[in-house]
Amino acid sequence: MTKKPIQITEVCLRDGSHTVAHQFTVEQVRNVTRALDDAGMHYIEVSHGDGLGGSTVQYGKSLVNEMELIEAAVDECTNSKVAVLLIPGIGTMSELKQAHKLGAKLVRVATHSTEADVSAQHISQARELGMEALGFLMMAHSVPVDKLVEQAKLMESYGAQAVYVTDSAGALLPHQVSERIKALRGSLDIEVGFHAHNNLSLAVANTLAAIEEGATRIDGAVRCLGAGAGNTQTEVLLAVMDRMGMDVGIDLYKMMDLAEDIVGPLIPGTQEIKKGSLALGYAGVYSSFLLHSERAAARFGLDPRDILMELGKMKVVGGQEDMILDVAAELAKKEKVRV
Amino acid sequence: MTKKPIQITEVCLRDGSHTVAHQFTVEQVRNVTRALDDAGMHYIEVSHGDGLGGSTVQYGKSLVNEMELIEAAVDECTNSKVAVLLIPGIGTMSELKQAHKLGAKLVRVATHSTEADVSAQHISQARELGMEALGFLMMAHSVPVDKLVEQAKLMESYGAQAVYVTDSAGALLPHQVSERIKALRGSLDIEVGFHAHNNLSLAVANTLAAIEEGATRIDGAVRCLGAGAGNTQTEVLLAVMDRMGMDVGIDLYKMMDLAEDIVGPLIPGTQEIKKGSLALGYAGVYSSFLLHSERAAARFGLDPRDILMELGKMKVVGGQEDMILDVAAELAKKEKVRV
Repeated sequence: MTKKPIQITEVCLRDGSHTVAHQFTVEQVRNVTRALDDAGMHYIEVSHGDGLGGSTVQYGKSLVNEMELIEAAVDECTNSKVAVLLIPGIGTMSELKQAHKLGAKLVRVATHSTEADVSAQHISQARELGMEALGFLMMAHSVPVDKLVEQAKLMESYGAQAVYVTDSAGALLPHQVSERIKALRGSLDIEVGFHAHNNLSLAVANTLAAIEEGATRIDGAVRCLGAGAGNTQTEVLLAVMDRMGMDVGIDLYKMMDLAEDIVGPLIPGTQEIKKGSLALGYAGVYSSFLLHSERAAARFGLDPRDILMELGKMKVVGGQEDMILDVAAELAKKEKVRV
Repeated sequence: MTKKPIQITEVCLRDGSHTVAHQFTVEQVRNVTRALDDAGMHYIEVSHGDGLGGSTVQYGKSLVNEMELIEAAVDECTNSKVAVLLIPGIGTMSELKQAHKLGAKLVRVATHSTEADVSAQHISQARELGMEALGFLMMAHSVPVDKLVEQAKLMESYGAQAVYVTDSAGALLPHQVSERIKALRGSLDIEVGFHAHNNLSLAVANTLAAIEEGATRIDGAVRCLGAGAGNTQTEVLLAVMDRMGMDVGIDLYKMMDLAEDIVGPLIPGTQEIKKGSLALGYAGVYSSFLLHSERAAARFGLDPRDILMELGKMKVVGGQEDMILDVAAELAKKEKVRV
């Protein structure tokens, strides 16, 4: 159980790729990276929203090849390190090698919280390349704590240098974050990380709970620029940490300035918590389920939230979108009273 | 130490009055109130942002006389009760009587956290009128816990049926909320309430901390429609409480719908946490200081945040805006290195 200094990873150029429909330009990536580097950010993640290789018809085509964006970000960094995300099944070994060659220093290998075994090859390959290799257990709210520990230990056994509790749906409550981080800290010899979404307006509080239990790898997104309601708002988290006497060596005023002047203008809509993002956090399901559920609800005369809640209870995972119609049909039979 | 069921007060038609520059129309108030009443909201606060009588050149003129708005809200309520806010020195006894006559059932009498003594007459008058009378201790982060307890006990002695810890600047951290609510619960025989602002993205978490320590009067604003970064987002809080098994008898889906369809469209900008609101929460000062500090900063070549931080340390209160230039001049002397 190692206790190291807290390291922040800024994810607006990766998780925020969803928010801008993967339309980041080289100039935008350069401007954001330069400002983050100047403020002293530790890691800056740059990839398609769904990780390396995510630019497809299924996940959304990127305007600019992510390798160009990674190269631009590396070029702007004087001290910050560029990180990439890789979801096995979407990203490949060859893309990881290419990102490494361009100067990416760290990879987070992300799997569903029950499927850590698919991360083995990518983690060990990253270590062989000399990259930092971290595990990223997504939808961590949907599995029991002991299962999460088991999966994290698998990632550790593959060579991961940290494992993240990843609250993909923004569904965890603070005490649930605490118990997960505590369990991992008690069972692993490597660092533990936390990645939040703000769908229930708890991202900053959940991150504080994680830090209190010893998480040292922390994700944030400036101005909440990430999927759904966005992530832990980096500059707000840093202000709160400063108020609590925690110094991570990042310039707060510079972060506030770049949030206002450089990142803010990139946000196409707003990162407020609206009906859709709240429903996702409340139900604890993938954001891709929202549109499908709305369609199914219209067809069967249901409230889409009832479908989302049922999917959440059934712990349906990404890729099982075809089950949504079945669930809706079943609900419609049961709930003839609701229109 | 009474423990009663949790009662929610929706403040978007009062705290949100600041956000819309006091331009609420009768129709807007009717629409919002009707939807809130239908969802089962307990109390709906309707007043100028600075409370009864706030419509002045100094605090901002209302488009519609608040008495008309109160009357309209009362007319729409079948079960919800209409509440008003009164800050002694701004609102008067005569305005309180008028609001009562129009059907307002509850008044929150608000003072700075060191000035509870000015609430005596208004609290006792409200009780005589047969209204519920609650105390509202503003800027509760800026005084030591024992001082807050002393002031709350004063309000209790005047006849207040509950006292609120009011985090006007959105500056409290969860553990600071816990200690304040706990201290008040331990010292008062009446209910304790909590009113948050979201400047540090902690409004929902702080509210949960307050509830955990026994606060039973809870404020929220749909879609964060309140001053600064807004208040605890009511529909999000209700979703989280539902997830925690707390039922307050308010229909969550209806709240989500009215947030999206009725309140959302009233918001002129966005309620995201931006540079200004974050600076206020970080420094712990009144929102009215922001513009003054920016002006003073420009004049003395300072960063406005340094002025705000200094004002926060000095615990300057509303009405002392004239001190801002002095503070800036003093800072400029000391900090000649910063430009």
